[in-house]
Amino acid sequence: MSSPLRIGIAGLGTVGRGTLQIIISQAKLIEQRCGKKIEVVGVSARNKHHNRGIDISHLQWFDDPMQMASDPKIDVVVEMIGGSEGVAKNLVEASLKAGKSVVTANKALIAHHGIELAKLAEKSGAVLAFEAAVAGGIPIIKALRDGLAANQFSRIAGIMNGTCNYILTAMWEQKRDFDEVLADAMAKGYAEADPSFDVDGIDTAHKLAILTSLAYACAPAIGEVYIEGIRRVTLRDMEFAAELGYVIKLLGITATTEGGILQRVHPCMVPTSSPLGSVSGVYNAVQVEGDSVGKVFFEGRGAGDGPTGSSVVADIMDIARGTVYKPFTLPVASLAALPFAKVDALQSSYYLRLSVTDKPGVLAEVTAIFKNENISLRSFIQRGHAPGEAVELVLTTHEALELSMQKAIAAIAKLDIVRAQPTMIRIENI
Amino acid sequence: MSSPLRIGIAGLGTVGRGTLQIIISQAKLIEQRCGKKIEVVGVSARNKHHNRGIDISHLQWFDDPMQMASDPKIDVVVEMIGGSEGVAKNLVEASLKAGKSVVTANKALIAHHGIELAKLAEKSGAVLAFEAAVAGGIPIIKALRDGLAANQFSRIAGIMNGTCNYILTAMWEQKRDFDEVLADAMAKGYAEADPSFDVDGIDTAHKLAILTSLAYACAPAIGEVYIEGIRRVTLRDMEFAAELGYVIKLLGITATTEGGILQRVHPCMVPTSSPLGSVSGVYNAVQVEGDSVGKVFFEGRGAGDGPTGSSVVADIMDIARGTVYKPFTLPVASLAALPFAKVDALQSSYYLRLSVTDKPGVLAEVTAIFKNENISLRSFIQRGHAPGEAVELVLTTHEALELSMQKAIAAIAKLDIVRAQPTMIRIENI
Repeated sequence: MSSPLRIGIAGLGTVGRGTLQIIISQAKLIEQRCGKKIEVVGVSARNKHHNRGIDISHLQWFDDPMQMASDPKIDVVVEMIGGSEGVAKNLVEASLKAGKSVVTANKALIAHHGIELAKLAEKSGAVLAFEAAVAGGIPIIKALRDGLAANQFSRIAGIMNGTCNYILTAMWEQKRDFDEVLADAMAKGYAEADPSFDVDGIDTAHKLAILTSLAYACAPAIGEVYIEGIRRVTLRDMEFAAELGYVIKLLGITATTEGGILQRVHPCMVPTSSPLGSVSGVYNAVQVEGDSVGKVFFEGRGAGDGPTGSSVVADIMDIARGTVYKPFTLPVASLAALPFAKVDALQSSYYLRLSVTDKPGVLAEVTAIFKNENISLRSFIQRGHAPGEAVELVLTTHEALELSMQKAIAAIAKLDIVRAQPTMIRIENI
Repeated sequence: MSSPLRIGIAGLGTVGRGTLQIIISQAKLIEQRCGKKIEVVGVSARNKHHNRGIDISHLQWFDDPMQMASDPKIDVVVEMIGGSEGVAKNLVEASLKAGKSVVTANKALIAHHGIELAKLAEKSGAVLAFEAAVAGGIPIIKALRDGLAANQFSRIAGIMNGTCNYILTAMWEQKRDFDEVLADAMAKGYAEADPSFDVDGIDTAHKLAILTSLAYACAPAIGEVYIEGIRRVTLRDMEFAAELGYVIKLLGITATTEGGILQRVHPCMVPTSSPLGSVSGVYNAVQVEGDSVGKVFFEGRGAGDGPTGSSVVADIMDIARGTVYKPFTLPVASLAALPFAKVDALQSSYYLRLSVTDKPGVLAEVTAIFKNENISLRSFIQRGHAPGEAVELVLTTHEALELSMQKAIAAIAKLDIVRAQPTMIRIENI
């Protein structure tokens, strides 16, 4: 057995603690599987005396995590601070510059600055690893990089935010509205005090940009992700979805289109019986489509000390074994500058819910607009009958161009008979 | 770029051809992702002039695949011949002895002789890789070895034979019996001319023994797998399963029990809505349970040129990149000699279908036997009412000891009122 790999953990929140816990409790198994010991030698966090239910008294305490980057006793810095800027970024940069390998679960940092960091890693020969940044315990980054490396990918679709999936699942199961369930989730600690990163789709976008970069060997392009969160998803739409054989999920989807790669995050109706449609609660899942392998589906816990810690420690074990790879599969200089498409160019099926005045000719007015935009309807449901009053009209379309659909919605919204802003949800038949 | 990695492919059946095809068509992508070229320099098969739809005229032809083992122009031998003995075994042994790395999809060979081969690989410093041996395109071996390496595993359960899953799916969807669907599958080429390896569960057992060895870091113990195939599964049982909320699947399951590790392959009733219950047709799926990560589920195509070729080429790419690992996660000398349990020690729930004479006291006779064996019933269904004639009685149990269940079945079979051998299917609430 060679000399141990010495770890410094910066940040002792849920994942930092989970990582420490696994390294300590599985020490023997890890040593066997790597051929060397992995030892945590130092830790850093905001409050030294906070009770974490784990003894850190024998570990060196760093008041300033930046000191880890220059400490010769540390081989690998595990960055568990979070945030795309500030201390997390400074620490990762300094560590890589000093030739120390870095393992992180920080999706915001990798999505925004992954390429600069990968360059630093290349320069110093350090490893930059971030399996834990996407979909917690699911080894999806290693799958794209190693297990499915012989494929050209045409599509990735995933449920990558446990908070959103929990909220959507709870809304449906408990027949409650978004605001109520969110408040409940915040009270229980399932959602952050500021839940906007999660519910507005930003966290999913970070993860999607990372997966896209690995699948297409390009730089993460977070600015090229179309993002829509789940705040506007209603129980009413869930009920109609169920009637149509669908369930509403927040998906991150990247696919090859004629105009380039299209990255998008938004609520989708997916078939209830599909693998992604069956993922409930805090679980995450990713479906990948490769030209040789076809569809491969991965499901597991997307957050928490154990699952995310499992991925962090797997990355550390790779370093201990000397596994060789590039953070974004290719050297930075070889990454492609690929064209990205706008959501306007999307070809999709759509669900549209309208509140209209119940009078003769309503459907004729609406369908004339669709005809005008060359959109073909697939089904419609009118709920209720109350002459002169508001009734609900639900339409689904065959595949159509997003831009045409947006124009149709704008035109429909202006009709006298339409009483509220139409609700549109994209349908993904995956 | 360094000098190319030179490949010899022995065997040009479905997977051999698929491998060749991917290496040729994805040459540029593979070179970029590995940092070196992968070149097929030689091939071997039974018939040189067979039309394979792929040009092999520029490749060296080996009449005897054994020559590949000693040819200095070949770095890696891809063994696609199949079978646990004979040419396949001789070729892999000779190649590893000569220091050539070997990639194979041969589950029978690895399940029976993996340890001897791993020893040869260790001795010569060659790589022995077999991602394609289990579950086709799903990178489950790499997941156990790398992505989930920080976990202690307590359970693996998988649908790992596409032929069986196709037959079971078709029986249910087409409402046809096993023999009919099998004949049809053979006619269409979905099942082998001799289907017994598949339908009798042997192929699944090979794959399960390999996964067990990776998860528990022990030698593959194919002799310790309890095996039951799908020949006795009837449409009638599928109908009762559906009524109870289950679907019948051939599973391979390894789990930690009090008496040791229990490996078993048999038809199971699994909840229709569970991830494994939703896997249909030729798809494969594996669910892994680790102490940190919890449940992780993988689904994808289990066979075919593309999916299995995808895994073969991924292994070759690992070799090109110089990825370091042991075939069974640990050096052979460090593999554990773990105790294995017999199926008698299984704790499971059971489904039992009886054909009984419809007369008063039937249920009392049957339930007395269960009481005697300390087995608690969960539900029963009596179908039909025909005094003095045969009716069906379906029982399900709470969790009970397999040995007790076997005793109860033997006793029930001897009752005068029981008209046919009882049908028992284990229930897995996963």
